[in-house]
Amino acid sequence: MNSDTLKTGKPLILVTNDDGLEAKGLKELVEVVRPLGRVIVMAPSEAQSGMSHAITVKSPLRMKKMHEEPDLLMYKCNGTPVDCVKMACNQLLKEKPSLLVSGINHGSNSSTSVFYSGTLGATMEGCINEIPSIGFSLLSLASDADFTASKAIAGKIVRKVMEKGLPLSVCLNVNIPNGSLEEIKGIKVCRQNRGFWREEFDRRTDPAGRHYFWLTGYYHNSEPEAGDTDEWALRNNYVSVVPLQTDLTAHTMMDKIRKWNL
Amino acid sequence: MNSDTLKTGKPLILVTNDDGLEAKGLKELVEVVRPLGRVIVMAPSEAQSGMSHAITVKSPLRMKKMHEEPDLLMYKCNGTPVDCVKMACNQLLKEKPSLLVSGINHGSNSSTSVFYSGTLGATMEGCINEIPSIGFSLLSLASDADFTASKAIAGKIVRKVMEKGLPLSVCLNVNIPNGSLEEIKGIKVCRQNRGFWREEFDRRTDPAGRHYFWLTGYYHNSEPEAGDTDEWALRNNYVSVVPLQTDLTAHTMMDKIRKWNL
Repeated sequence: MNSDTLKTGKPLILVTNDDGLEAKGLKELVEVVRPLGRVIVMAPSEAQSGMSHAITVKSPLRMKKMHEEPDLLMYKCNGTPVDCVKMACNQLLKEKPSLLVSGINHGSNSSTSVFYSGTLGATMEGCINEIPSIGFSLLSLASDADFTASKAIAGKIVRKVMEKGLPLSVCLNVNIPNGSLEEIKGIKVCRQNRGFWREEFDRRTDPAGRHYFWLTGYYHNSEPEAGDTDEWALRNNYVSVVPLQTDLTAHTMMDKIRKWNL
Repeated sequence: MNSDTLKTGKPLILVTNDDGLEAKGLKELVEVVRPLGRVIVMAPSEAQSGMSHAITVKSPLRMKKMHEEPDLLMYKCNGTPVDCVKMACNQLLKEKPSLLVSGINHGSNSSTSVFYSGTLGATMEGCINEIPSIGFSLLSLASDADFTASKAIAGKIVRKVMEKGLPLSVCLNVNIPNGSLEEIKGIKVCRQNRGFWREEFDRRTDPAGRHYFWLTGYYHNSEPEAGDTDEWALRNNYVSVVPLQTDLTAHTMMDKIRKWNL
């Protein structure tokens, strides 16, 4: 198991997602980055939605080469999206990728969803490992969604990031409205909207009379009036680009808490 | 299934963890908060280390009451730590808790570990749901670790947070050195250290000749000289208190990226 196929001078680009190796969005993203470098795909064997930044510690990981052609290697891994990034960077590859792209996710990952999203988990993991990283999501859950506009937009953003770079500890969360390029009004750099999911568990009873619950719910927007957030941009048919940081420290609170004299 | 046991005027305190309902650290944390209010425990049925902010979307959730006495209700749930918070807040409880405490984790959750940690996943979930939330971790992986000092420190911090409150979207990540109260030099308010885990996958071969990998590795500190980080504090036998925020936006990058003219 090696990555000899990728031994040339072009930039090395790592592609992953959380919908799994078979997802249409992944194949589309591979097409976006193919002209830009040597591409290595390490994607989950099965869908890993909601897996966030989880890692697999209780069971062993496996990976398998699924496809090989010049400048393109595709593997699947039985772990989470973050496991995929770790396996690629720490086990498979001999050099650090120049770029990590995750997606294109089938479904939105704006606002608070960054916390639950495997797409963004993988993106943040790339960023922690000091790789310029971008997560892409399309606002359609359909498995056969139309990625035509998404591909054009992702290509534009990827090329810009490869040209400009990203600072250490910063990655991008890109969400794309579902529609044609003509319908999309432009690209907005935004902040993460504040909100949360109000869960409405769907309570059922199994044949033995025991209750069980399906997680369901709706998004509560805590700042619906704000005009500079990703939720606003998407609602108004703009692509949202939110720069995310891996330093979670609330720096402005440090002095206040120091005054508590703990 | 209801929470009638908790119908009094005292503050409602939600306790969870990622080591599971049977973990010693959870029982110790319950003892810390018992004198301060009505306590509801919703903890994973089994250990959920490394589950981060993951939610369960592919299988149903179940919960079961395990213990009941005046002002104390204990449930287990078959999901992740974040599922536990959602089940407690959205299904079980009729009022929003005044406080969420998660832990006391058996093992460190400083620096970049906040991303992988189920303890901190639950803490951040409480924060997203606008509940003042604190995650506690002891720097010992032993299942029979001595929590004597941790309990005194956790009690002090919990009482201070109940007195002072926390702003919306800010929670606390508290890590406690393994030692006696006399050995611990004090409590430092810190920022999250920058670093990452260098994985060294333990590659093995199964009886059928197929390779598999165990995730293992060591922490690489990217700023070992810094004197204001949680890693520094813990290395020097201080308790580290890092205020974390749920707004992940890299605000300082927004104008720079706008100038890219995407």
